[in-house]
Formats: sequence, structure tokens, C-alpha cells
Amino acid sequence: MMYQAAISLDCHIRVLSERPDDSAAQVAADVSVGSWHDQQVVADFASRCDVVTFDHELVPDEILEAVESAGALLRPSASAMRLASSKAEQRNLAAEAGIAVAPHHVVTDVDGLRTAVADLGPRVVAKATRGGYDGRGVRWLRSPTDVDQIAEDDFTATGPLLVEPDLPITTELATLIVRGVQGDHVLYPVVLTEQNEGICTTVTAPATGTEFAVLADQAHEAAVRLAEILGHVGVLAIELFVVDGDLMLNELAPRPHNSGHYTIDACTTSQFENHVRAVLGAPLGDPDLVVPAAVMANIIATDHDVAAVGSVDVPSHTSIHLYGKTARPGRKIGHVTACGDDPAELREAAVGLARQLAAPPATTPDPSMERQGHA
Amino acid sequence: MMYQAAISLDCHIRVLSERPDDSAAQVAADVSVGSWHDQQVVADFASRCDVVTFDHELVPDEILEAVESAGALLRPSASAMRLASSKAEQRNLAAEAGIAVAPHHVVTDVDGLRTAVADLGPRVVAKATRGGYDGRGVRWLRSPTDVDQIAEDDFTATGPLLVEPDLPITTELATLIVRGVQGDHVLYPVVLTEQNEGICTTVTAPATGTEFAVLADQAHEAAVRLAEILGHVGVLAIELFVVDGDLMLNELAPRPHNSGHYTIDACTTSQFENHVRAVLGAPLGDPDLVVPAAVMANIIATDHDVAAVGSVDVPSHTSIHLYGKTARPGRKIGHVTACGDDPAELREAAVGLARQLAAPPATTPDPSMERQGHA
Repeated sequence: MMYQAAISLDCHIRVLSERPDDSAAQVAADVSVGSWHDQQVVADFASRCDVVTFDHELVPDEILEAVESAGALLRPSASAMRLASSKAEQRNLAAEAGIAVAPHHVVTDVDGLRTAVADLGPRVVAKATRGGYDGRGVRWLRSPTDVDQIAEDDFTATGPLLVEPDLPITTELATLIVRGVQGDHVLYPVVLTEQNEGICTTVTAPATGTEFAVLADQAHEAAVRLAEILGHVGVLAIELFVVDGDLMLNELAPRPHNSGHYTIDACTTSQFENHVRAVLGAPLGDPDLVVPAAVMANIIATDHDVAAVGSVDVPSHTSIHLYGKTARPGRKIGHVTACGDDPAELREAAVGLARQLAAPPATTPDPSMERQGHA
Repeated sequence: MMYQAAISLDCHIRVLSERPDDSAAQVAADVSVGSWHDQQVVADFASRCDVVTFDHELVPDEILEAVESAGALLRPSASAMRLASSKAEQRNLAAEAGIAVAPHHVVTDVDGLRTAVADLGPRVVAKATRGGYDGRGVRWLRSPTDVDQIAEDDFTATGPLLVEPDLPITTELATLIVRGVQGDHVLYPVVLTEQNEGICTTVTAPATGTEFAVLADQAHEAAVRLAEILGHVGVLAIELFVVDGDLMLNELAPRPHNSGHYTIDACTTSQFENHVRAVLGAPLGDPDLVVPAAVMANIIATDHDVAAVGSVDVPSHTSIHLYGKTARPGRKIGHVTACGDDPAELREAAVGLARQLAAPPATTPDPSMERQGHA
């Protein structure tokens, strides 16, 4: 999606991709296949770029710091990526920016975990501080005896764990800020997000209703402070819980984010275009909604078969975005956006279409489609 | 732009491009560089595609007919491309579809031209029946003696000429139909187009006002009939003159068209996505405007230097689309779309931004941009 946006800006994107069939590698004209766990690979790649940015936060901190020290221009910087990518650091940043955080422990061994459960429990959630995604790296401990299931070795796989109590979350909100190299910024609307088993299912933009008016302003103020503290360049996504009517940090993402995919269809300038604009040092584009409301529904594969786009009718006001990903149960393989007036109707249209696309088709309408190649 | 749309559909596009720096060849992952004037090149390329479509109508008819006869699946078909690409054949189609055409002659030599001027003149316009574009291939003859400037040899370069009188055109309109393989279709709004020296400068969608209500219906009915007669698959653009309050055919284009570029930002489904959907045999997407109005302004290079996107502020409600083309005076190198409520304001914003982008920047705001590579 960043590549699609960059084309309109006549910006040449060179992709470093772990595998030749990764989404971006399938479509970009200039792809280097190599591991971003390999410092030499990243350094060589960066040396062939004017500016380097990211569509995930998994490149090891020490590699980013080394290539930046060697002269590569990273946007966001290695330091912003390091701080914004760690759930533990995110909580320090939030406190500094004046956003509430839940009481929490960061633990590195079973003893620490026991202490955290005694302090915060009985029910707690333990999350990998780095690399968790779509419910992966998240473990619920429902009673102190659940700690017995965790061995010291488990920490080798996950790294430090962030432990928080079971919060009485009523709503989840998110917003995006895009910050330019001059410290200029644009803010996207505050949106409502819905999750199922830790995976985002829908995003509704904007979050309307009197209960959100004050919270939306607070979320935007927090976003500005967070981006400023980080010295961030590009998109910074902020996910927030509403607990007892107040905002509390959930997590940050220092890159274009699933909660902003609706911006492609619903805003003058998408999060992807504004990310590219920011990292190029270009003026940022208008983030405002061009429609009264939009609902994005993720297409989450239920099986290894999914519907071909040619077999599914597209309801009015809806658009389909596929990622060229192999279907695996629980994997986000695309999204649908519905734009219009009534969020309830839009939600029904988007969710319905996303479900259809997640399932194999009953029939194929056009025989020629059977010859259709797959990207 | 078709490539950007195809990415979201997970449709693999293989590009046959005359030069490696053609717009599509710069960004596509799978490019064959070769001449589409060479039948063997086109045949080899087509043999590696499930379905072949076009972003221009310049491939010689005999090549399209040969590769189709050899088994390639062309959408639109060779016959639709041949008929819809000839200004002479377009007039026969229009008559069959019940659309008025100007009195005209199709002439192949100077004697024929003299007869046409005597019949239609004194002022006439002579247009190449094939391959004219942006005012190229168009010649005004202001008096019968102007014929003396044309030699028999000139016909070798231009081919047959369509000769029409100087019409009292008050307005130019356009619309797009997209027809699917099952004969299903969608219609885009009827739009107003403005030209300067034969080059389209702006498109305003929709064409509102009581004077256009009946004409818009007639234009849509004509579009349906034309697409049906052609057995067309994909986008068919129809440009119309308003003469004495009535519609008259200007020309057809059997492909995504400049008069529909506004659809990327202003409609649920762009002309490019619907073209891809049509040629894949997939259900067509919703063509409706998602905004009250939109104005598209072409970025027409005035010089060999143009502004970098990083040096130009983007007004509210506007989006920039660059094509990666080398600037030459008079060449369309991109477009700008403004979406909102008031067409006059949108026009001002779009035209102003397009002019800025067509000229070199006064300053470059971010020093890092000087290192910025060009696609």
C-alpha cells in the first residue's frame, strides 16, 4: 500500500524483503531479497537508498543503530524505532507525555512474573515487549497457579514480558499522527477499533458521540506530545483503551498501521502517502475525511482457501484491498472499506464483504477467470 | 494508474513497454521491453498472459487481429479496438447508436480534401483518423487556399483525414462506461471538460445544471448503445460536443481515459480498477461519486524543469498524481484532483496546484530532498 502511494508521488521505492513472495516484493520493480536480521544486508541496502523507512518494527535495534551510525538516513530514526517499538518503553513515553498507563511490571524471569501476579492479579495479561502482533506474544494468566505453566526457557523465546492487570476496558480507540522532518504534523480522526481474540476486526471512523468528544481531543494532544518526544518522522499510530471513561495507553506503532487503512478510501491523503511525504521531507497532505463516515473490516482468512475477487459482488460504497498473501487461518490477507453516512450500515456492508472474501467461492462466474494467474 | 489499481485486486500485471522508462515500466515488477509495432513481440508477450488489455490504442489493427486469431484473449477485442480507435469508424458507430455526428468527409488525397472544403468550408478541421492525441494530428484549414499547403506526401504520414466544419461548440462533455464480459455495465457521471489548444486542461464532475440534465441522460444512453454495438469489454470513454444545445460525437477511446482520472479520488471504484475488473471477468465496482464534486486539472509541463513534489504545499482537499514522465512543453506529466462542494473553488485549487507543479520550484525546503532519487 505504501508502494501504491509512492507511485503517485513519483518516488522510487527500493524494497528490502525477506522473501520474494512478501506483499511488497510481489509488486515493486526494485526488490532486494535478503534478511533484515543480517546487519551487512541492511547496511548494503541502506547504502543504496537516500532515505530508509519501515513497514514493520522488527529490524533489531542494534542493526538500525549501526547503519544509522555508519551514515544511513533513517526516518523514523533508530532511537524513535527502538523506543516506540517496545511496550515497556511505550509506557515510559506515555507517562512523560501525560497519558495514563495501567499499573504494570516488566519481568525477565519466573520469579519476577510471580511478584507481578501477586501485585496485579489474580488475573493478568503478559505481553512480549517486542514483536507481538495480532494476539501473538500475548498470554492470559487467570490465576497465580497459571504461572507454573511458564518456564524460565519461555523467556528466551519471548524476551522480557510486560504484565498488566485485567483492565475493565469499555472501548478501544486509535489515532494516527504524521510528523514531518520540520516538526510539522497532521492528525487523522480518532477511530473506534473492535478486536476478536486480539485481532482487529473493524475500524470505524470517526469515533462520534459526546462520550468521545473530550477523549478525542486528549488523544490528539497525546499524539502530538508523543511524536515530539520521540522526534518521530512518519506515521505514529496510537492505540488507546477507554477504562472508567478515561484514556489509557494500549500501544504505539511507528509506521503505517491497520487502524489507518481506511484512510486510503476515506481521506484526502492516505496514511501511506503521508508517511512517504514525511520521510521524503515533503509537505504533508490533508488528512481529513472526504466522507461522513467509513468502516474498515479486515479480511481474516478462516481457511487456506479464499474467494477470488472475480467471484464476489461488490456492494455499493465498498472497496476491496488484497495483499497478495497466502491464506492461513487468522491471517489478515486484505481489507474492505465502506464509505458513507450511517456507520451501522457501513459496518454491515464491510463485514459482510470481508467474510465473503475470507471464504472460498461457491461458483466462478467467468470461465476465463480459471486461467487467471495469481500475483 | 492501472498498475496501482491492480495491486489492490491481487491481479498480476505483466507490462509490454516500448521503452524501459515508460511510466508503467518504471513501477511494474514484471516488464517486457519491446515494440508493439512488432507482431512477433506482441504475439510472444500475449502468449504469456491470461488476458491482454491496453492503455493506448496505437497497436496496429493487423497485429491485434493476428494475435487474437492465434488464440490470445484480448479485452477489448481486436475488432472493438479497431472500430473505436478510428475517428472515421467512430462516426459510423455513433450514427448506428443514434448519436448526432457533424457532416464530414474522410479523405485520402488532396483532391478529396479540396472537395471536402468546398462542401463543408470555408473553415474546416482535418484530423488524422488514427493516433491523434493532445492536439497532434489536428490541422485547421481557415480558407480554401490553405489546402495548397498540403501535399500528397502529407497523407503518407497522417493516413486518411477526417474533415469536419468549424462547429459552434458551446461546451464539451465526456462520460465513461465500463462493460463487463457478461454485458453488464456501470456508468460514470457525465463531466465537463475544458481544452486549451486541443489539450484537456480540466475536468469537472459531475456536469450539473438544468441544461445538462437531459444531455447527461442522452450521453449515458448513447454510451450503453455504443459499448453494446462494439461488444466492448473495459472502459469506453465518450467525448461529446454540445452544439446548438444538442450532443454531437467528438471521439471515443477504448481504454481508461484522462477525462476519468478524477475517479481515483472521487469515486468508490476508479476507472482503472473497473477496467481491470472488466477484463478479468470480475463483477464491476460502484462507480458513484463519494463527494459532491471534483475537479481534475492536468499538470502540463511548460518547460523541461518541473517542481519536485517535496517543494510544493498541498492545499486542503487536493491530491497529486505524477506519472514519472520527463517534462516536455505541452506534455501531461501528472494531474491534480480537488474534491469538495463548490466546483469553482475546487477548480481554483486544482488549477493553481497543477500550475505550481508544472514550474520549477523557487526553493527546496528540506536539504535531504536534494539527495532524493527520481523514479
